[in-house]
Parts: sequence; structure tokens; C-alpha cells
Amino acid sequence: MNYPGLIEDLAEPNNSKIVFFIMDGVGGLHMGEGTETELQAAVTPNLDQLAKRSSCGFLVPIAHGVTTGSGPGHFALFGYDPVENNIGRGVLEAAGIGFELTDRDVAVRGNFATVDENGLIVDRRAGRISNEVNQRVCKMLREGVRLEGVELFVETVKEHRFLVVIRGDDLGGEIKDTDPQTTGVLPLAPEPLNDASAGTAEIVKEFIRQAGEILSGEDAANMLTLRGFAKHRPYPSMMDRYSLRSLCLANYPMYRGVAFLAGMDMHPITPNMDAALDALEQNYSEYDFFFVHAKTTDKTGEDGDFRAKVAAIEELDCLIPRFLSLNPDVLVITGDHSTPSALSSHSWHPVPVLLASQYSRLDLADRFTELECLKGALGQFPAKNLMALAMAHAGRLKKFGA
Amino acid sequence: MNYPGLIEDLAEPNNSKIVFFIMDGVGGLHMGEGTETELQAAVTPNLDQLAKRSSCGFLVPIAHGVTTGSGPGHFALFGYDPVENNIGRGVLEAAGIGFELTDRDVAVRGNFATVDENGLIVDRRAGRISNEVNQRVCKMLREGVRLEGVELFVETVKEHRFLVVIRGDDLGGEIKDTDPQTTGVLPLAPEPLNDASAGTAEIVKEFIRQAGEILSGEDAANMLTLRGFAKHRPYPSMMDRYSLRSLCLANYPMYRGVAFLAGMDMHPITPNMDAALDALEQNYSEYDFFFVHAKTTDKTGEDGDFRAKVAAIEELDCLIPRFLSLNPDVLVITGDHSTPSALSSHSWHPVPVLLASQYSRLDLADRFTELECLKGALGQFPAKNLMALAMAHAGRLKKFGA
Repeated sequence: MNYPGLIEDLAEPNNSKIVFFIMDGVGGLHMGEGTETELQAAVTPNLDQLAKRSSCGFLVPIAHGVTTGSGPGHFALFGYDPVENNIGRGVLEAAGIGFELTDRDVAVRGNFATVDENGLIVDRRAGRISNEVNQRVCKMLREGVRLEGVELFVETVKEHRFLVVIRGDDLGGEIKDTDPQTTGVLPLAPEPLNDASAGTAEIVKEFIRQAGEILSGEDAANMLTLRGFAKHRPYPSMMDRYSLRSLCLANYPMYRGVAFLAGMDMHPITPNMDAALDALEQNYSEYDFFFVHAKTTDKTGEDGDFRAKVAAIEELDCLIPRFLSLNPDVLVITGDHSTPSALSSHSWHPVPVLLASQYSRLDLADRFTELECLKGALGQFPAKNLMALAMAHAGRLKKFGA
Repeated sequence: MNYPGLIEDLAEPNNSKIVFFIMDGVGGLHMGEGTETELQAAVTPNLDQLAKRSSCGFLVPIAHGVTTGSGPGHFALFGYDPVENNIGRGVLEAAGIGFELTDRDVAVRGNFATVDENGLIVDRRAGRISNEVNQRVCKMLREGVRLEGVELFVETVKEHRFLVVIRGDDLGGEIKDTDPQTTGVLPLAPEPLNDASAGTAEIVKEFIRQAGEILSGEDAANMLTLRGFAKHRPYPSMMDRYSLRSLCLANYPMYRGVAFLAGMDMHPITPNMDAALDALEQNYSEYDFFFVHAKTTDKTGEDGDFRAKVAAIEELDCLIPRFLSLNPDVLVITGDHSTPSALSSHSWHPVPVLLASQYSRLDLADRFTELECLKGALGQFPAKNLMALAMAHAGRLKKFGA
């Protein structure tokens, strides 16, 4: 049931408010020792009560069995087909630091690295140099590298990470990573993966050659690797598609990047979730759609720390009354993917979802857990359809057909 | 899981009988005051018993979040993709009164209206003139209007409603409604929405000009508006697609119209549901597929009358034994969409469905309600796939592949 353009045709503005509270990686698994998932083990009185008067179910982020990265996971939540609109890492990195790409740009993520006298990589992260060193060497590259016929941008991201953007005509972004993902070997060559990228790969080769010379005097950051080459293409915004004035309240570059690509306004980074909720309250009258992102559920899951993930869920549960006091027309609580502590990584398991509105059809789910959501009214459905459901419950979709 | 042509390839005839009992708008919502939906509140001993020995689940009429009109809602029930085959209002109106369109026809629904001396609309429905007045003025238009190079048909529908069909070569149906949907303003011009419809829009303009002159002496019906322009294209019939001899037992033009477009034989309008069941029994040996339509569940829902919708469901429940006494191989009970009394309108909520056959996989659903169907064997699935399920349970689909 994928009808391109249908939801956009039916969308109409009104005064309703839609809030997405995304607990990154919230879905879990029972741990070997016990019989409970993180959501089951957590004491969540607020989520429990909300689940009883909501429609619950599961999102399939990409497709059955597919484990998603956070980029496509979030793009799907915002109603963008995550495969057709697969965002290259370089583009996400640029978006994450608010670098405004044009459709003449190829972006790629860079890592400063340390190589020995033979050019073999000894540290893929250059000892995680400070942001200050990063800024200094980025400036050296910006000022020192000379490329024919294209503009070059080299921007600090954080520690050893930086962004390279090449701007010009007829560039191609299908180029192999130069990061060999291991030490004791040479960086790889930037091989073009199609004819349209052959010229760009030559430009990249020349960039790497000059950069190697310029960096050769550095102790740690004496080389670089590049991965995630991507040609930028603009995406239609949440305003264009849904007539939603949208605000992003997320603190990590990745999630800010996706929201930026979807045309959301970007609230400045907040120090913690309480401050994010303050910002939600302060900006509530100015927007129609709010994307509030919490990272702790994913981080603890990635760490394989069941107890810490339970604690993270319990802390986020305490925020629920603040969301409810705003009385949003639609409150959605879900994740971009599951991150079970048992796997210490993202997984393919469907993600529990809860949709609270005046028009939610009630169901048999008594808690916001993997077991209870099985009794939910929403069933299991593609994450990319969530946005349409939220719009419907907010009264923002016209009737289809006579 | 949408494979165009697959079901048609697998369909083979046999002697089985399939009955669709469509309770229009049957899905509901709990009302604010209580905790029950209309189906839960209704006393339905026959549906309850049937649900226990059926497979239950939910239909998603069009796509998640999309509220459908009755036209696409029914087309999906018959296995026609409701978006690819979106039927224009004019075509539905023609089909509803049994007007046989050709693929050279543009059809549009007309409303007689009353305008003041400045041409401003004072009554969009011309005081709901009688059918007799409607027939008289339609005849005046048929006999009075002269259009170059095309044939014109003007047919009474009911009260202020009528049908206009323009038949000719190279006509286009992408034309804006002339009904401004409000009073105190002039009717709109019939603007073409694409180049292929520009010539047709000119013909429509001339029709409106002449009609205005002819009607100027009338008290009430002294002007007209047009909406839902649509070029007709023929659809493959239920016989072509599924080898099903199909009979429509529906009393409202809209539902008769969809059935007509799907190539069903049209039983004459019956005075009530009991008479419709008489007709079902009398024609049972002559057909393979029966579409029996009940309107009361939708009408009471649209009226926002929870109690009346409950009563409508209870009345329809009393008909179930008559269906069962025919011993159909497959009996499907569902709706074309939900019409919750709480919303007084169609909604996007999935529609409960029940499929009773000798080969239904049993499930945990104990009643035909929104809560119990959550425990059903059919899960939630697109309405357009229902027909294939019915065919399968009737033994009418061959095995796919070796």
C-alpha cells in the first residue's frame, strides 16, 4: 500500500499539534538470564497509563529482517521512503553540522588518521585529536589544497572527524571508501563505481595527494581516510509535503542531519532532556510538528547494558507528564529501530509504537512493551506510514475519492 | 505483496458460492462517555456465534491514515486497486443510474441551483426540487442545448441532482468543478486542468451558457453547477478477472454504480433488507458471487447517533441466519470503511472483517468487534486483497508454481 504522492494530495493544514517523542533504539529483547525485555523490566507508570488510552502496535523500519541505521530509520519516521531516499553518510554528516549542500555537491565523511613512515595506518582515529587540532588542520587543508574547476570545503565535525564537500558541475558520488577499516595497511584508492563518478574520483585522488603532503608534518593527524561519498539531492520538506511547520529538538548530529534534510527548523542543541522539554514548551505555539529525540535508550542498548537501558527508559517515562500537559492532538512514542541490550547493536526487530489522540481506537495493550503492543490496534506496519496515521488522527488528511 | 495479474492468472471456476455482506461504515470508536464501540455495545448473538467459527481481522481500505469515500472503498472490496482505479464522481453517478458509458464519454454530476438577478447563488440545491421538476428541466436542456461535434445526454438522478454526459472524440475529463460550495457568489468557470481537457472545457462553457438561458424562466432551478468531471474508461469485469457470475443487491446509486463498473448484474432496487434477502435466495442458483449492501450502519454513524448505529447493527445481526441457511461456501462480513458515531463521518480506522468458510483457520476472536478482531487470524491487510482470500477459501485459486 504505497501510493506515491497520495498523502501529499490529501494533506491540508489546521491548528492541530503533533509531537513525536523518539526514544532511539527503544525496542529490546529478553536477556538470556531473565524473561523480560528492557521495556518490561522498567517501572513506567506514565507510559503504562498512556498505553491504556492509546493505539499501540509495531513499526517495521525498512522491511522484514532489515536492521536499519539511524539515518534511514528516522527518515522513515518522517514519512520518507527510506530506501528510495537513502541518504549517503557524507550528506548526513554535512546536514548534521548544518552545512547547506547544493545539488552540485559531493559530500564525504573524513577521519584524520596516523600513518607510519611507510604510509601504513597505525591509528584510524589519529588518537582522537582534540577539536582544536582538528580545526587547525582543517584550516591548513582549506588554505593549502588547490583543485582545478571545483570548490572545496573542509569542515571540522568533532575529534578526528571532518567533512569534505566538493562543489562543481557533473560530479558523481559513487566512489569507494578509502578507509580500509583496519590498521597496518595503506589507505585504499578512491575507486569510481560508475562512469559518471570517474572524473570526481580523479579529483578526490588529487585532494588526497595534496592533503598527505600538507599533513606530513603533523604528529597524529598526518593522513586522512574518506568514507560515505554521496552526491546531494534536495528532498521535499515537511512543509511542502504535509503543510507542517516542523521543529527539531535533537542534540546529535545524525538526527539533526535527517531533520535538517526534511526541512525542519533546527532548535539549538540543549544540554539535557529537561532543557529540550523547556524548548518544546517555549516553541509550542510556533510550530505544528515537533521531533523530540532521546539518545540514552540507544546508547545503553549499544553498550549491552540491560540495567542502564532500563534506567534510561525509566528516566524518559518521567518526562511523559510534561508532554501530556501540553495536550497535543497527537502524541507518538516510538523509536527509529530496536537496539536490544542482548545484541549490543541495532536490530531488525519491529519497534513498539504508541499513538495517543482523542481518536485513537482503544485496544488490549496495557503497557508500552513488546508483549503488550502485540495486542495493539495498529498492528505491524511500515514505519514510513506512521506519518500518515499521525496526520489522520490530527484531522489533517482530506477524504480520498467520492 | 501486490502482484498485478497474479490472482487473475490463478482463478479457476467451480460451483462454489461467495457472499459479501457489506455493512457500510461498520467500524466504530468508543464514545467519550463510555468505553465501548457500537459493535461492542450491540447485542449480536448471531455475529458472535459466527465469529467463533470464522477467521477475523481488519481491512485497511486504502492505506494507513487514509479516509476513503464509498466509491474507492467498495472498489477495493471487489479486488480493484482503489487508487490506480480511482473513479471520478461523474462516472460513479452515471453508473449509479445504470447509464452505460463508452470510452468516448466525459461524465459530470450536476446540481440544479437557484441564482438571484445578479447570477449569485442563493440556493445550491434549488430548494431540492421534486423529481418531476428535475425530469422536466432535464428534458428542456436535452432538447434545447445545441453543441457542435459532440452528443449530449442530460439525465435525472434525484431531486436537484442530475447527470451530464458529453460524448465525442478526444475529450478530456480534467476540468475544475463549477460548484463554488457556498452561496452569495457566482458559479465558477469550468477551467481545464490539462491541455487535453482544454477543448472539452470550452464545450462545457458553451453548455452552461445555453443552459442558463434555457433555465432563466424557472423559479427554483434557474441555474446549474457541475462537479466531478471524469473521462470514462472501462474496467475488467468480475467475470473477466475471477470467472465469477456476480449479482449486486444494493439500493443506493453509489454502491450500484461501483458494482456496475465491476460488471456485476444489477438486481432491481428492493424496498428493504428482507426483500434483498428474498432476492438473494431467489437468484442463488444463478450466480457465484453476491454483493449485499446495507446502508443503515453508515447513515447512523454519519448522523453521530451511537444508539441508532447500535440498533442498526442489531437489526442486521438478525439477518445472519438467513445468510447461513443458504450455506454459502464463503460468507464475508465487513464494511467499506469505518464510520464512527464519535466522528459523524467516515474515518481512516481499519474495518473489522469476518470470513466464514469450512476452511477458515480458527482464531481467538469471540465476537465481531474492534477489540476481538485484534485476536483474529487474518491480521490487518489491504482491503483489495480480500477478494483473493475469499476466492481461496472457495477453492477458486489454483496453486502458484510447481
